[in-house]
Amino acid sequence: MQVSFTPADIAALTSPQSTRGATVEPIRGLAALADAGPGDLSFLGNPKYKAEVATTRASLVLLPADFVGEPQPGQLFFLVENPSVALAHICARIEQSLWPKPAPGIHPSAVVAASAKIAATVTVGPLCVVEADAIVGERTHLQAQVFVGRAARLGDDCWLMPGAIVAAECELGHRVRLQPGAVIGSDGFGYEFVGGRHEKLPQIGHVVIGDDVEIGANATLDRARFSRTTVGAGTKIDNLVQIGHNVTIGRHCLLCAQAGVSGSTTLEDYVVLAGKAGIAGHLTLGKSAKIGGGAAVTQDVAPGAFVNGSPAIPFMLERRIAVLKQRLPELFKRVDALEAQAR
Amino acid sequence: MQVSFTPADIAALTSPQSTRGATVEPIRGLAALADAGPGDLSFLGNPKYKAEVATTRASLVLLPADFVGEPQPGQLFFLVENPSVALAHICARIEQSLWPKPAPGIHPSAVVAASAKIAATVTVGPLCVVEADAIVGERTHLQAQVFVGRAARLGDDCWLMPGAIVAAECELGHRVRLQPGAVIGSDGFGYEFVGGRHEKLPQIGHVVIGDDVEIGANATLDRARFSRTTVGAGTKIDNLVQIGHNVTIGRHCLLCAQAGVSGSTTLEDYVVLAGKAGIAGHLTLGKSAKIGGGAAVTQDVAPGAFVNGSPAIPFMLERRIAVLKQRLPELFKRVDALEAQAR
Amino acid sequence: MQVSFTPADIAALTSPQSTRGATVEPIRGLAALADAGPGDLSFLGNPKYKAEVATTRASLVLLPADFVGEPQPGQLFFLVENPSVALAHICARIEQSLWPKPAPGIHPSAVVAASAKIAATVTVGPLCVVEADAIVGERTHLQAQVFVGRAARLGDDCWLMPGAIVAAECELGHRVRLQPGAVIGSDGFGYEFVGGRHEKLPQIGHVVIGDDVEIGANATLDRARFSRTTVGAGTKIDNLVQIGHNVTIGRHCLLCAQAGVSGSTTLEDYVVLAGKAGIAGHLTLGKSAKIGGGAAVTQDVAPGAFVNGSPAIPFMLERRIAVLKQRLPELFKRVDALEAQAR
Repeated sequence: MQVSFTPADIAALTSPQSTRGATVEPIRGLAALADAGPGDLSFLGNPKYKAEVATTRASLVLLPADFVGEPQPGQLFFLVENPSVALAHICARIEQSLWPKPAPGIHPSAVVAASAKIAATVTVGPLCVVEADAIVGERTHLQAQVFVGRAARLGDDCWLMPGAIVAAECELGHRVRLQPGAVIGSDGFGYEFVGGRHEKLPQIGHVVIGDDVEIGANATLDRARFSRTTVGAGTKIDNLVQIGHNVTIGRHCLLCAQAGVSGSTTLEDYVVLAGKAGIAGHLTLGKSAKIGGGAAVTQDVAPGAFVNGSPAIPFMLERRIAVLKQRLPELFKRVDALEAQAR
Repeated sequence: MQVSFTPADIAALTSPQSTRGATVEPIRGLAALADAGPGDLSFLGNPKYKAEVATTRASLVLLPADFVGEPQPGQLFFLVENPSVALAHICARIEQSLWPKPAPGIHPSAVVAASAKIAATVTVGPLCVVEADAIVGERTHLQAQVFVGRAARLGDDCWLMPGAIVAAECELGHRVRLQPGAVIGSDGFGYEFVGGRHEKLPQIGHVVIGDDVEIGANATLDRARFSRTTVGAGTKIDNLVQIGHNVTIGRHCLLCAQAGVSGSTTLEDYVVLAGKAGIAGHLTLGKSAKIGGGAAVTQDVAPGAFVNGSPAIPFMLERRIAVLKQRLPELFKRVDALEAQAR
Repeated sequence: MQVSFTPADIAALTSPQSTRGATVEPIRGLAALADAGPGDLSFLGNPKYKAEVATTRASLVLLPADFVGEPQPGQLFFLVENPSVALAHICARIEQSLWPKPAPGIHPSAVVAASAKIAATVTVGPLCVVEADAIVGERTHLQAQVFVGRAARLGDDCWLMPGAIVAAECELGHRVRLQPGAVIGSDGFGYEFVGGRHEKLPQIGHVVIGDDVEIGANATLDRARFSRTTVGAGTKIDNLVQIGHNVTIGRHCLLCAQAGVSGSTTLEDYVVLAGKAGIAGHLTLGKSAKIGGGAAVTQDVAPGAFVNGSPAIPFMLERRIAVLKQRLPELFKRVDALEAQAR
C-alpha cells in the first residue's frame, strides 16, 4: 500500500477541531501507535492504547478532542470528534485509489442466461454464472466465480466477492456487500421424523436482504420453508455466521463471527450478537438487546437487555455468578466447617 | 412464488381425515398463521402458535386431527394426521414446478476429464470441473461451479449445488444433496510434533456418504488419515458443521448448524446434535443419544441419554444446576449468616 | 487405495529399532487395529487402543519401542521410536503415488491477467482466476476454481485446493496449503456507530501468511484495517476457523476446528486453541499457552498457561469447579439442614 498525503490533505479529510505541533513529513503510511515511524499516520481509537501516544514515532496522530498531552518535536496532533471515523475517511480515500471500480461489461468467460436482465453499468467478472430471469441492478459488481441463481434480484451498487452465492429467487437490496464464499439461500434444515426416517420438508421460500447490508465470508443464510428469511437494512453479519430459515433480522443489527440464529427467531432493530452467540428457535430478541460472546439464548430477551452465559441470564448476574463459581471450593470448605462445628 | 390450488387439489395432496367450514378462494400462497390473508394456506405445526388459529385470515388451515375449534366464515379447516407432513406434500408439488429438473447434458463451459464416467442422464452445469476417473450416476445434477475430484464416485439422483466440492476418491450414495459450498474430503487435521515443528501426517483416506444424506452449506467433512470417514444413510447435516477425520456417523442422525465432531469419534444411529454442540475425539455416542445446544461432550454417552452443558452431563441435572447456579449469591449470604451465628 | 509393500519396504521407511515375529504377507492396506485383517499394516498411536494389539489381525504392527507383548503367529511387530511418525512416512510414500504432481502449465479455461507473474513450473488448473499483478512462485499448484486477487503474492510449492480464495494484496509464504474453500483476505468486521447507523471502516490492509502454514476448509482470515493480519511460519489452522482483522498469530501454533480469534489479538508462538475456543479482541496469549475446547478467553493468558471454561480460568481450577458444580444440589440441602438446626 503506497500513499502520499500532506498534513493539509489529511486536514481536508478529517476536519480537525484543533491541532498541536507540526511535521514536515509527507504521510506515506498508516500504522498502529506502537508500530508507527516517521512518515506514518496513527490514531487513538481505543482508550486501552492511550499510554502509547506519548511514545509513538508517528508523524501525525488523530486524537479525541479532549485528549490531554503534547506532541513530540516534529510531530503533529489532530484533535477530532472521533478519531476512528476520521481515519475511516482517510482509508475510504485510499480504498478508492487501491481498488478502482472495474469497467462495466460481462467477461467473456462468464455464463449469463439470455433471459437475465443485467444493467449496462454492471460488471460481471470472470467465470461468474447468472441464471435465467435474474435481475442485476445498476453498477453492481460480480467480481469472479460468483453464482446468481434463477430469478434472483440484486439491487444497485452491490459488490459480490469471489465465490459468493445467491441462490434462486433470493433478493438483495442496494449497496449490499457479500464477502467471499457467502451463501444466500441454502435450504433450511427442516425434516419430519416419519417411519424411522427424517423426511425432508421442501424449502421453497427465499431470502430478502435490505439495503446497506454486509454478509461475511462463508456465512450461510437459509431460505425460508415458504415465505421469507429477512435481513433488515444496515445490518452487518460477520464471517461464518449461520442464519436459519424463516429468521427475521431487523435493521442495524450486528452479528459477530460464528454466531448462529435458529429457525423462526426474530431479532428486532439494533440487536448485537457477540462472537459465537447461539440463539434457539422461535424466540424474539427485543430492540437493542445485546448478547454476550458464546452466550446460549434459550428464551425471549427484553428490549435493551444485555444477557450472557449458557443459558443466557442478565449480564451483571452472570458476571457475579462467574466470580462466585470460582469460590465454590472455598464455599464447600466453609460448609464442611459449619457442619463439623454443629455436630 | 406463484401457485394456484383448489381446495380439492389440497385434499388430494394431504388426505384430510375430516374438514370443517368452506372457502371459495383458490389457494395462491402459503403463509404463517399470523401473516396469512385470504387466498393463503396456513398450518399449525408447532403448538406454540395454537392461539393464532382463532385469528388467522388464511382461507385454508391444516390442523392436527384432535384440534378443537371452528373456522371463521369463508374459512376451511383440514384435519390431518400431521400438518407439517401434509404441508410438505404441498411444498414438494410446488418445488417440482418451481425448480424443474434440468435437461441432461454437459454445459460447454464445464471441464470434464475424458476418463470420467458420466451417465447420459446426468446434468453437468456451467463451470463445473470433473476430474479423471470420476464416476457420476444416473440423473445426478451438478448445478454450477461444482468440483468433483479424481476417482470420486457419485450415486444416482444426487444434487450438488453451486460451489459444492467432492475431493478425490470420496464417495456419495444415491439421492445425496450437497448445499452450496459444502466440502467433502478436505484433509484431516493431523500433525505430529517433532523437533519443535508440527509435521503433517498425510491424510490418504477418503469419505463415504450413504444414501439420502444431506450436507449443509459450507459444512466440512475431512477425509480419513487412511481408511474412511463415514456418514450413514438418511443422516442430515446442517450448515457450517465440521466432521473430523475417521469419524463414523450412523444412520438417520441429525447434526444441527455449527456442531463439530472431532476425529475418530463414533455416532451410532439416530444421534441428534443440537446447534453448536462439540464432541471430543475418540468417543462413542450411543444410539439415539441427544446432545444439547452448545454442549461440550468429553466422554462417551450412553444409548438414549440426553446430555447438556459444558462439560456435558445428564440433561435434568444440568438444568437443575443451571437454576441453582443463579442462586449462588443467595447461598453465599446464607453461609455468611450461619458463620456469623456460629461465632 | 491400492498399495503393495514388503516388510523390507516398510523397514526401509520406518527404521525399526527391533522386530518381533514374522509375516509372509505383502502389505496391501492400512487399517486401525480393530479393523485390520491379513495383509494390513496397523499401528498403536494412541495408548487408549493398547488392548487391541493383542487381538488385531494385522500382518504388521508399528508399536512404540517400549511395548510389552508378543505377536501372534504370522504377525510381525516393528518397534519404532514413534509409531505415528513412522506411519506418516509410509503414508507420504503412498500419497506421492496416489496424487502425483500435476504437469506445469495453465489450463486453457483459467483466466489469468497478462500482468500476473506466473513461474513456468506453476500449475494453474481449470477455471482458476489470477488477477492483475499477482505473483505465483515456483511449482505452486492452483488446483481448480481457485481465485488469486490483484497483486497477491504466493511463494513456492504452495497447494491451493478447489475454491480457495486469496484476495487482493495478500501474501502466502512457501509450502502453504489452503484446503478447499479457505478465504484469505475477507474484509475485517469494522464499523463505527454514527447517527444510528453502522458506518463501514474501510479495511485496506492485507494478510501475510508464513512458510509451511496450512489453512483448513472454509476457514476465514480477515485482512487488516490497515497494516496486516499475520500467521507465523509452521502454524496449522483447521476447518471453519475465523481469524479477525489485525490478529497476529505466532509460529507453530495449532488452531483446531471452529475456533475464533477476535480482532487485534496476539497469539505468541506454540499457542494451541482446541476446537471451538473463542478469544476476545485486543488480548495477548503468551507463548505455548493452551486453551481448552469451547473456552471463552476474555483476558490475557500467561505464557505456558492452560486455561479452560467460559470465562476461561486455569484448567485445574476449572475442572475442580466443574465437579463441585455438580454437587450444588447436595450443597443447598446441607445449608438447608444447617439453617434448620440453627433455628
